[in-house]
Parts: sequence; structure tokens; C-alpha cells
Amino acid sequence: MESGVSVKTSLGQSLAVFKPRLSDLVESFDRPTQILYPKDIGYAIYMLGLKNGDSVVEVGTGSGALTAAIAQSISRLVTFRNIDPAEGFLERNADAAVIDLGDPWRLVAPAWEALAGGGVLAAFTPTVNQLEKLADALRKNMFLVLEAVELLVREFKTEAGKVRPESRMIGHTAYVTIARKVASKE
Amino acid sequence: MESGVSVKTSLGQSLAVFKPRLSDLVESFDRPTQILYPKDIGYAIYMLGLKNGDSVVEVGTGSGALTAAIAQSISRLVTFRNIDPAEGFLERNADAAVIDLGDPWRLVAPAWEALAGGGVLAAFTPTVNQLEKLADALRKNMFLVLEAVELLVREFKTEAGKVRPESRMIGHTAYVTIARKVASKE
Amino acid sequence: MESGVSVKTSLGQSLAVFKPRLSDLVESFDRPTQILYPKDIGYAIYMLGLKNGDSVVEVGTGSGALTAAIAQSISRLVTFRNIDPAEGFLERNADAAVIDLGDPWRLVAPAWEALAGGGVLAAFTPTVNQLEKLADALRKNMFLVLEAVELLVREFKTEAGKVRPESRMIGHTAYVTIARKVASKE
Amino acid sequence: MESGVSVKTSLGQSLAVFKPRLSDLVESFDRPTQILYPKDIGYAIYMLGLKNGDSVVEVGTGSGALTAAIAQSISRLVTFRNIDPAEGFLERNADAAVIDLGDPWRLVAPAWEALAGGGVLAAFTPTVNQLEKLADALRKNMFLVLEAVELLVREFKTEAGKVRPESRMIGHTAYVTIARKVASKE
Repeated sequence: MESGVSVKTSLGQSLAVFKPRLSDLVESFDRPTQILYPKDIGYAIYMLGLKNGDSVVEVGTGSGALTAAIAQSISRLVTFRNIDPAEGFLERNADAAVIDLGDPWRLVAPAWEALAGGGVLAAFTPTVNQLEKLADALRKNMFLVLEAVELLVREFKTEAGKVRPESRMIGHTAYVTIARKVASKE
Repeated sequence: MESGVSVKTSLGQSLAVFKPRLSDLVESFDRPTQILYPKDIGYAIYMLGLKNGDSVVEVGTGSGALTAAIAQSISRLVTFRNIDPAEGFLERNADAAVIDLGDPWRLVAPAWEALAGGGVLAAFTPTVNQLEKLADALRKNMFLVLEAVELLVREFKTEAGKVRPESRMIGHTAYVTIARKVASKE
Repeated sequence: MESGVSVKTSLGQSLAVFKPRLSDLVESFDRPTQILYPKDIGYAIYMLGLKNGDSVVEVGTGSGALTAAIAQSISRLVTFRNIDPAEGFLERNADAAVIDLGDPWRLVAPAWEALAGGGVLAAFTPTVNQLEKLADALRKNMFLVLEAVELLVREFKTEAGKVRPESRMIGHTAYVTIARKVASKE
Repeated sequence: MESGVSVKTSLGQSLAVFKPRLSDLVESFDRPTQILYPKDIGYAIYMLGLKNGDSVVEVGTGSGALTAAIAQSISRLVTFRNIDPAEGFLERNADAAVIDLGDPWRLVAPAWEALAGGGVLAAFTPTVNQLEKLADALRKNMFLVLEAVELLVREFKTEAGKVRPESRMIGHTAYVTIARKVASKE
């Protein structure tokens, strides 16, 4: 059946079938640990400045939602797995690094090694304590912390004459930190 | 000078130069009317599900930040200009339509004509009244309104031992509405 | 049993009994229509500037949480019931008026009659459309609208080393409008 | 001139004079250190359950806005000054304790001594680190932490047909923690 076509069921109800967007597919992914939402994923990808041809190193134990979104934004996602910090990312000169696991500070030095000068890093941390340790590790490892933010999204009812925000909303997912690699000139 | 390299100035200060991301370039764009922020742009692009090869029709009187972001996400941006609703978008079978001007309801019918079945529309409206009129027009013109949301982003100070949100933040930019074209089966 | 005393149960659990605050008692009230939360009630009472000896007229179909809070803030709550706008509040020279029902604009003129010059009005409206009609009625009936606000409250987990906002929160209750009666000098 | 009366100036402008509410007076207070806003003050006073006849101990280095609001809510405010933790509050059997300074954890034990069983404590902390230390001290000193929250308030433009939130808002003031004294039964 063609995307977007609406049909009547035998009970007289309308039913439309759509080709899924990535954000629809993600709904069916396993969610083993922390969850990133579209608000976080869309923001990070935009702030990473990902574009066709970029190479990205990523490490995370999440649902794969972020990985799928990165893969859709660039033509190739070079590295993706849970890595040993001692070994590091084998990639060099990457345009961006994405870290989505519980102890992101362990991977700050390996990410620095993997990135090209000026390469952008995004990391996600659910607690404030993780955010604090991450920002500290970034500053001590030659990264410039551009920002650490949280995003809130609120849905609206839009029925004419009764417009109002929904009564309930997601209060928190994770803080998003964006930093860039600084390479000292000897 | 290479991106990310830090040098000492004659005054002993450190200075690093970075290759600009799109989000940096946008800072220097003119902002003639309403302003979309990274929170809105990143979210909309993710929810539109844009990917390489997609064709997008866009109309807007904004700063160009959104246009530039779309252009970076897909390989070609087919249409971009302020259009006459009577004439409509000349494009057909577009994957997505983006509307960012003060009276988006005037372009709902033309967007329907331009989109393929199941095509996704994103529109931005600063006031609640505009949101209400837009949602009403979408429902009356064979669109399924998936969501109308607002996004808030809050920056954090991350100095160790003194972590706290910034005292001031942007309170509002625009509501983001996402809808999909429904094509009735005859 | 004395307030605040902790005892061990036969199962070895600790149990403490507290004298209820008003905000605890309110939890057990019926909630027939719209719900006001402590964030709204505390703010409104503070912005009304209620103090001992003040007289307040109130009309509302809510849970009684607001009424109870007003009654606790002042020594006497003069009027409380659902009124006929044609008849109006019988009270005159009131220090404050509080309106918490679905069509607050109908009571704007009666509230003006009941208030002393400079008297403060607070009203609660769940939808943006109600807020719009209320503000319009206030301006057309010799009130100065000081502000219309919404409040959001977010709870935190405070376990050491794992501080973070709760994952879910209330997204919306009602907009709070504060206005003062203006009496033209003839 | 009577409160609320509007007069025409010689330039033809309307001018109304109002008797100040407490929230108006507070605008002219000195703001030496951290700032509490009506959202925080109104909430805390409501959650403290303050009522006529209550005795309250308070310590703070702030603007006096909170003190003034407490004084307006109860008939007597027993203690107000910056105290030596070793000496403690001299008061006993207080209904509530309010702490608004940079190291509130130092005063948790003295507050416990000053409160009656079940007495309610409110404290304000600008940073997450202070919140964490405070909550930890409360739990270790026989308090039950009822909640730690942050409040956000957003103003709206309410001109008919152009309703929208204000573009800018306050992003953060302080976290508000509410706890009750637990007295173990020997």
C-alpha cells in the first residue's frame, strides 16, 4: 500500500499507512539503558555540524537511536562499538566524536586522539554529577567546552478554541555537552 | 591556520581558531524577521526524517538558518522562495515541505499538492493564535497533525563544585508543528 | 502520637507520623474540575499580597485547595460561592478577588465592583484561549493587567553522586493572571 | 492620592497610583547576594504551611524579600539573623525553619534543635552541588526530605490575536528543598 493513503476499515474508521521516518523506527528499538529523545538527538546532530562525507567515531550503550540518526546524516559512520579506553578509537582525523555511556570522561582522551584539530565532540550525561566530571575531564584534556545544555520539549493540544500544553511532559533525559578539540601549536 | 590550533598572543593569551560549523555561520546571518534557534532547527530536521536524496520544498522569510541546515542534510534542496499561494509550489512528489512565515495556513493546500503521499510538513509559528490557525488548516486539508511542540533549551555553568543553570534563558522562539500528507484512496 | 516521632513497626520498618500541612490535606480533597497545584497557589497568594485583616472575594468550582490556602493567609474570607454575574459579588471594598472557573471573563465586571481602588485580582485559566479572552475583558473593564504567567515545577532526585531531575513532570495546569483595579478620577 | 485612581497628566497620558503590595516593595530592596523570586518565595511559604500564630526561625543573607513575606504570613517572626552554628538558634519548638545562605548544611543540626517534632524546613541553594550537600546533611540529621524542586516562571504577552510567551525569561534562581524534622521515639 502506498505511503499516506487513507482507507476505510470495515468498521467505518479511517486508517492511514505511512512510510516510517527514522524517528518512527526508533520507537521500536530496544532501550537497554539511558534514553535519548528526538530533542537531544536533533540538537546534537545540528550542533555537531555533521554533513555528507564527514567521518564520525561513536561509542555508546544506548538504543541505537543516535547511531541511526548519525548514519542518516553522513555518508559513512566509521566506528561504532564499546571501546577499551587504553586502546582507544583506532580512527584518526575524525570530524566528530559522539559519546553516550555512563562514564564518558574515560573516553575523553581517546576521543581527542581520534579527532582532527577543531573536531567536535558531543556527549550525553543523565546526572549532574556525570556532567560535572565530564566537563572537568574535557577542560583538562585540551577541549574547549562550547556548551552544556538541557532541552525540554512540551506538546500542545491544538483543537480550535482549546489550545493548551499537554498536562504531562518528560522532565529530563540527559544533559548535552558540545566541545571542540584544541591542538596546541608547538 | 589549521583548525583547532591554539596559539599564544603577544599579550600571553591563548587563542584558538576553528573551522566554523553551520551553527557558527548562522550567527552572522541577517535576522530580518522571526528567529529559529538550533533547538528548533535540529528538532525539525530530525522529525522530518530528511536524508540524502530527498527533495524538499521550503518557503520562508527568515534568516536562512533553516534553509542552510536543510541543504546540509539532503543532497538537493529543490525549491526555496516566497511563493504565491494561488500558483503554489511547482514541485510535485516532494518528500518534505517546510514553512516558516507569518501566515503558514495560506500555504497548506499548496504544500499538500507538492508533497508525495505520506510526505512530512514542518511549520514554525511564534504565536499561539498562528499555531491554532495552522493546525486547523492542516486538519481541513488532509494532513495528519503528528505533533505541535515547543522546545526550551537551558545552558549550564559547569565549573567543578559550582554547577548550575545559567540565570537567563530564551523563553520562546516558535511552536514547531509536524504533519503528514494523507491521500484518500478513491 | 506526637508529630514527627519515628517508630519501628513489627516488621522492622521505620514509620514517622506528621501533623498535616495544608498542602498535605489538599491531597485528599475532591478534584471535580481543573486542578491548581502548590506552584500556582503559592505564587498567586504571594502576588495578591494577602495579609492578615484583608477581605477577599473568591469564586471557583475547583477542589477547594485555593480557598483553603486563602483562608489560611488572611483572618477572614468574606465571600465564597459560585455567583450570578448579573447579581455580582455583594461585597464592596474588597482587597482582593480570586476567580477560578472556566469563563472568568463573565466575572470581571462584578469583581471590579467588589474591589476597592487598587484591589488585586487573580484568575486561573487552563487554555490559551481562555487567557486571551480574560486579558481582553480585564483591559476593557478598567483593570491593569500586571502579568500573565505560567509556572513549571520540576522535582529532583538528590541521592549523593546521582543528582538529576525526575524523568517526568507536570507540563501544564493553568495560566495565572494578576491585575489591579483602576478607578478613574472624575 | 487614593490607591488605584487614574489621572491624566498634562501631556495627556494616563497614570495610576497603587498602594504597593509586598512584591512591589521587594523590588526596591537591596540585593546583596542571591536573589529569590516570587515563584520561590510563594512556593516555599505555601509548602511550609505557615499560618497565623506559627513561630519561625530564619537565617539568611539575602535581600529580605523572604523575611518580609514570612513576616506577612505569620503573626510573629521569632528569630532573624546570621547565626553561629556552634551556638545555634536559641529558639525551641519552632513550627518552621528557613535557611537562605551559601552553606545551609552547617545549619541543619541547629535547625533540628530549634524545631518541634514534625517542624518543616525550607532551604534555598543556587548550585546543584549545594543542593547535594544539603540533602545529604538533612538525611544524616534526622530530617525527612519531602522534595527538592526548581520552579520556572514564564510571562506571556496577552494582546488579542498575538498571544505568546515572552522571548526571554529567568532560567534559574535556586533549588528549593522542603524537609520535616523526625524525632525518634526512644
